[in-house]
Amino acid sequence: MKALIVYAHPEPRSLNGSLKDLAVSTLSAAGHEVQVSDLYAMKWKASVDADDFGANATAPLRVVPSSGAAFDAGTLTPDVRAEQEKLLWADTVIFQFPLWWYTMPAILKGWVDRVFAFHFAYGVGVHDETRYGERFGEGTLLGRRAILSVTVGGPESHYSDRGINGPIDDLLYPIQHGILYYPGLSVLPPFVLFGADKISAGDYEDAAKAWTERLLALETTEPIAFRRQNFGDYEIPSLRLKEGLETLGGKGFGLHVRA
Amino acid sequence: MKALIVYAHPEPRSLNGSLKDLAVSTLSAAGHEVQVSDLYAMKWKASVDADDFGANATAPLRVVPSSGAAFDAGTLTPDVRAEQEKLLWADTVIFQFPLWWYTMPAILKGWVDRVFAFHFAYGVGVHDETRYGERFGEGTLLGRRAILSVTVGGPESHYSDRGINGPIDDLLYPIQHGILYYPGLSVLPPFVLFGADKISAGDYEDAAKAWTERLLALETTEPIAFRRQNFGDYEIPSLRLKEGLETLGGKGFGLHVRA
Repeated sequence: MKALIVYAHPEPRSLNGSLKDLAVSTLSAAGHEVQVSDLYAMKWKASVDADDFGANATAPLRVVPSSGAAFDAGTLTPDVRAEQEKLLWADTVIFQFPLWWYTMPAILKGWVDRVFAFHFAYGVGVHDETRYGERFGEGTLLGRRAILSVTVGGPESHYSDRGINGPIDDLLYPIQHGILYYPGLSVLPPFVLFGADKISAGDYEDAAKAWTERLLALETTEPIAFRRQNFGDYEIPSLRLKEGLETLGGKGFGLHVRA
Repeated sequence: MKALIVYAHPEPRSLNGSLKDLAVSTLSAAGHEVQVSDLYAMKWKASVDADDFGANATAPLRVVPSSGAAFDAGTLTPDVRAEQEKLLWADTVIFQFPLWWYTMPAILKGWVDRVFAFHFAYGVGVHDETRYGERFGEGTLLGRRAILSVTVGGPESHYSDRGINGPIDDLLYPIQHGILYYPGLSVLPPFVLFGADKISAGDYEDAAKAWTERLLALETTEPIAFRRQNFGDYEIPSLRLKEGLETLGGKGFGLHVRA
């Protein structure tokens, strides 16, 4: 296995840092190759701007075409190209981060905003009467798997079916489906550690054991059964789920997962 | 009205820039006071780190207590304190941004991560058998209203009830409920402009008219009827919606909106 760990926490001696270190040591000891993108250590630039596109930046700046032109010309900035190369090298991508305000920290969102360039992660493939580009089950990163490892300050009940924050699966849908599945990654069920703000040494031992088990099972874990876009479940180009299929899934975001 | 516009786009001559300018001119002409936080022009620092907390940063860095200590001591960085002061000055907060990867751009997420400090936006109020802090209907920003003005590249059908991306209301829930309603803001229904990647001059005229109407109606628009946390709808401390109340709302995130 070739694993890329994208890690977003400012403190190496944090819970997130420990879980990242555990992933590195566990996978390495099992004979896998591991690379880490430690976004804080790399002083990752979070904000998309014209500097990302050099001579390919349009004036006025239009982000999508500038991104595509710079990607096509191979002139995206070296930090962005290095991350794209790591993604193409990897067969497994692990994201380790704390849930801040119900989604990823800004520095990690900035990794997505900049690395997932036009023509690399989106705007790939043809749009015609039967296909709406290569995405959601196709795309540049097809054949690779991804998993979120997320620490959550609050307790699990707050993120349960009736919890005030909404179900954790729904909060993660825009990341797991919208960001990861979009360019072709298979998304494994997330590893979510609740109660991270009040974790004890004993709790950590339990969490480390559970995370180790998940890490050693990455190659055999069934991905979330998101529906593929271009294979009959959706009307094209409206991309609405065809009538009748909702009986196989939930409501809302759950519609887009096969039963 | 005292309106704060938090604006996140790198290009002043963009659709988002035009909608921001329209908000400034429309509200000013109607006699309201307006301040703008133009995050790109301000070169807003997006990533939370120890520098945010100065002498109040714990070692190793623990973000939550460091944030609270620095807020209490008045030693958060001047950029963060200025934004907090604007929020306390305003009675209306408008967020103008493009939907990038199904949520806000990193620079705006970094505004939330840094400005919404512990003891300012969260960790406010007592936790006991009948109250779980002051949030979701209470909090520091109670009595103020907020509205998202969001441009979306794709067409509305992709974000409809059966659309592949999920319903736009569900995609915005972590922002509208999790970020804005959390510290007490009343959240007005969003202004969402779909098809922004292919907008024509005529489309823009229609959008500008619609946005102007929304801007001039801000003071009389009914907010989204999110359920208040501490007023009987939720079990405490599990914060699960009490049995039976689901019949008044939808499923998933919709549970937390009154019918």
